[in-house]
Amino acid sequence: MKLLTFKKENKEQFGVLNESTGDILNVSQLALNGHPSLPASILEAIEKGDQFIMNMKELMEKEDLSSFYENVDSIEWLSPIPKPQKNIMCVGKNYRDHAIEMGSEADIPKNVIVFTKAPTTVTSHLSEVESHSEITNQLDYEGELAVIIGKKGRSISRDEALEYVFGYTIINDVTARDIQKRHNQYFIGKSLDGTCPMGPWIVHHSAIENPNQLNIVTKVNDEVRQNSNTKHFIFPVEEIISVLSKGMTLEPGDIIATGTPAGVGNGFNPPKFLASGDRIDIIVEGIGTLTNVVK
Amino acid sequence: MKLLTFKKENKEQFGVLNESTGDILNVSQLALNGHPSLPASILEAIEKGDQFIMNMKELMEKEDLSSFYENVDSIEWLSPIPKPQKNIMCVGKNYRDHAIEMGSEADIPKNVIVFTKAPTTVTSHLSEVESHSEITNQLDYEGELAVIIGKKGRSISRDEALEYVFGYTIINDVTARDIQKRHNQYFIGKSLDGTCPMGPWIVHHSAIENPNQLNIVTKVNDEVRQNSNTKHFIFPVEEIISVLSKGMTLEPGDIIATGTPAGVGNGFNPPKFLASGDRIDIIVEGIGTLTNVVK
Repeated sequence: MKLLTFKKENKEQFGVLNESTGDILNVSQLALNGHPSLPASILEAIEKGDQFIMNMKELMEKEDLSSFYENVDSIEWLSPIPKPQKNIMCVGKNYRDHAIEMGSEADIPKNVIVFTKAPTTVTSHLSEVESHSEITNQLDYEGELAVIIGKKGRSISRDEALEYVFGYTIINDVTARDIQKRHNQYFIGKSLDGTCPMGPWIVHHSAIENPNQLNIVTKVNDEVRQNSNTKHFIFPVEEIISVLSKGMTLEPGDIIATGTPAGVGNGFNPPKFLASGDRIDIIVEGIGTLTNVVK
Repeated sequence: MKLLTFKKENKEQFGVLNESTGDILNVSQLALNGHPSLPASILEAIEKGDQFIMNMKELMEKEDLSSFYENVDSIEWLSPIPKPQKNIMCVGKNYRDHAIEMGSEADIPKNVIVFTKAPTTVTSHLSEVESHSEITNQLDYEGELAVIIGKKGRSISRDEALEYVFGYTIINDVTARDIQKRHNQYFIGKSLDGTCPMGPWIVHHSAIENPNQLNIVTKVNDEVRQNSNTKHFIFPVEEIISVLSKGMTLEPGDIIATGTPAGVGNGFNPPKFLASGDRIDIIVEGIGTLTNVVK
């Protein structure tokens, strides 16, 4: 099941995608009209977890909900979690080939590296990404699989880690390379407004057999730049969750970006940084395509 | 004026300190009883900014509010902002002598270094700080002045920066040094649950003439470990706000910790890390004392 957040008549709503028609079942409206036990926001749905998915499936089978469907062309896309309750946690250098392109073999990490992006970076599928050209001339893309935590937990073992995952989405960890390098710790260069396109939806974990076995491709203006598979993770999803939760409580709605493979603009010689008008498509197997254009 | 958040009869409330009696005026109760224009939470008060301070002063002069005072011994302390809406932003190595004790002259930064702590790290004045002894044996203290942003802004100039400050508080940026070093980027070693004691209150900016001219002292079991003044900042508050806001929107309620002076446990030979039962007092001129004990 695919969950998404959108604007309709200037109100934030959430829904689930009907994958055969491409239409969107407006769950927020269902909750207001006769189904008060349904969650009113995607964060509530994430907290309900598998129970929400089961309830929705049952409802969609049993009832005629046709008046609650929205045509996909009638909505304004929002990020699935438009206002995260904390910074997005991002794994750095989680593919060997990317670690090497950013430096050398010596940059392949022995332990998980995590930095964060401010919640103000989050933007939606199909949004225009600011170029920030007044402060950077090295704006770069990073296609990534992202994990949405579904259950509160701490000291989670690798064996249990996937039980804490609600689902998966796609993130473009847009980065100002010059600013990232200048400030030593990554936060500043990773936190410019609108530099975390996310979406188009969250895919429930039941639809992803193994998050460590997904093709991931990034195209800029239809040119393939990144082409890899999450099987090349240095630290698989289970390990990331286990390490992060050692002494730190993970909460429903937490977002973890799992790192990017080789092929970022900075890795080319000469570098291929983003320019105004560039279209970036990130395709992750089993999830879909996240598309954005640089303003 | 000093603003604080506390628990009374198991409900989160906020108030202002009466500095002559030491009692707390319960603003949340005032808002519910005849003063609906008052903010119900400290985050709302921060958003109202100087207007809130003026309204409160007027009210306290004109009306008999004696039935709304709480004795300080009758409340349970909470952090002034118990659930920040994003990670705490922390400046690294902002005092020369601390940069040197963590390495050498080469570690003195030329540009502002910023990392973050998860909102789940936040804990209150007088709370017990977990030792996390199962995962670290290098738990360390860092006494710091923290800035609370009061107004939304981006690309804020140094000259205007202090207009965006609501007030100031004290933070103990408790750090697991071994974990911090192991994971390259600081987030993981800085984000163990309960490692951001904050408080006891927020002092409105009108009571702090110059945030870059405040004595700051940290004691462990009454032994002075850090003894400095914010005049030794490499990057003063105005510069931190200006750099952070370049391309990134700052929002009311954002918390920025300004860095710690020399004298952290890691700086001694042999190191003086924290142990169970240690009491840490951080005293910042014009604000007060933040006290916590290691569990």
